[in-house]
Amino acid sequence: MAKSILSETPELDYSEASDYFNPEAFTELVENRRSCRLYTDEKIPEDVMNKCLDLALLAPNSSNMQPWEFYWVRSEEKRKLLTSYCLDQPTVKTAAEMIVIVARRDTWKRNSALMLKAFDEQEGKVPDSAILYYKKIAPLAYNQGFLGWFGLVKRIAFNVIAIRKPMVRQPKSIEDMRVWSNKSTALAAENLMLAFRAYGYDTCPIEGLDQRRVRRMLKLPYGKAEVCMAISVGKRGENGIYGPRIRFDRELFVKEV
Amino acid sequence: MAKSILSETPELDYSEASDYFNPEAFTELVENRRSCRLYTDEKIPEDVMNKCLDLALLAPNSSNMQPWEFYWVRSEEKRKLLTSYCLDQPTVKTAAEMIVIVARRDTWKRNSALMLKAFDEQEGKVPDSAILYYKKIAPLAYNQGFLGWFGLVKRIAFNVIAIRKPMVRQPKSIEDMRVWSNKSTALAAENLMLAFRAYGYDTCPIEGLDQRRVRRMLKLPYGKAEVCMAISVGKRGENGIYGPRIRFDRELFVKEV
Repeated sequence: MAKSILSETPELDYSEASDYFNPEAFTELVENRRSCRLYTDEKIPEDVMNKCLDLALLAPNSSNMQPWEFYWVRSEEKRKLLTSYCLDQPTVKTAAEMIVIVARRDTWKRNSALMLKAFDEQEGKVPDSAILYYKKIAPLAYNQGFLGWFGLVKRIAFNVIAIRKPMVRQPKSIEDMRVWSNKSTALAAENLMLAFRAYGYDTCPIEGLDQRRVRRMLKLPYGKAEVCMAISVGKRGENGIYGPRIRFDRELFVKEV
Repeated sequence: MAKSILSETPELDYSEASDYFNPEAFTELVENRRSCRLYTDEKIPEDVMNKCLDLALLAPNSSNMQPWEFYWVRSEEKRKLLTSYCLDQPTVKTAAEMIVIVARRDTWKRNSALMLKAFDEQEGKVPDSAILYYKKIAPLAYNQGFLGWFGLVKRIAFNVIAIRKPMVRQPKSIEDMRVWSNKSTALAAENLMLAFRAYGYDTCPIEGLDQRRVRRMLKLPYGKAEVCMAISVGKRGENGIYGPRIRFDRELFVKEV
């Protein structure tokens, strides 16, 4: 069933063209983005913050489950705590703003229902296979059960079915759900960092932080949410970039097969 | 020690300014990127493929460990297999090109050595703290030991130290290394998808695939590498976009604290 839902081409009453073409602007943007460790004391306008966050929310993501959250840390008290939880790194100490990006492995249930509601509002324009996907397949795919028991059942079932034919094997555990939610959330994080650069500001992604203290500060539910990364934002300082960009030989990473 | 390495501001003989500012181009790019399910039979020039892959490699990533690999599937035989491993989804069947993006949780060791080599070539321009980081801290941080025994030791040690002060708690297990490598790899995946859109092509990220069969086809070492996602690429077909973009209420995702 999963296979026929995925492999069929639905009848559609929708078309969306795009003639966007601007490789120069994007190349320049990516080349100008560097992780910044020291910012000036320039503030960032509130509407720039909001516009960049809006662009993050347009990232592609797994089954449109949007498993992300963005905590813009504005309170002075929380900001002080966050700086110490990031071990007083200069990029955090000097940042104009800080955003903690959180991966949620639990919100797919709520968001699955929201997808079905959104389909309802399109009155008959949505293919049956899409509705079936969110009604039947998504709960099967993302539910792992208490302590992962249902994931274990799936793992066995998938492996039996997969003896004879290709089969999606993941997510089949709570750990897979961690990977799953962090992956989509990182896609949005990259949009966010590029957006700030496009607006003339710099960023630095921070994973070197006390995950547990940050989680508690943000009152994130244990076992359901985790810090994907924090992002510092500001205007690049004089020595904000620590050195020329280092990338190892392309052949180590790009393979034609 | 980790804290002082992270919190100190090094003396630098380097400066890199950027006056890049083009929010309109990036906003338009992000708004025009949609996941595409049906492509025309238009081919993609080889230099566009390579330029987009190059832009992916410039993504920010954890400790510059570049834990990614991009398998551009060009052989007809492998492409046929990949299509079936992706359960014959139309976006794969009709794609001009397919790229499998792989997260490596094992290459940090090689790449740590490459960082130290790159520092050597900068002859004295690199702060001591950076050298110390790759010599001492990175091996401590990323090594988890056989079956994760060293991760367990770290977990206990970190938690004891963290009673009194903030402390980085991850990665402390093989599963954390999976999350870690997929996160950085997803940042590069987003660059890649945006790059193709900037060049006038569309993409679709695919996680619904037989991870094990794809891993075997690419001869990826078990326990060290995993498929992060596959990306289909091509020229958008008439009904390539299945419907208007759906995003749930912003308030669910963006929180000011």
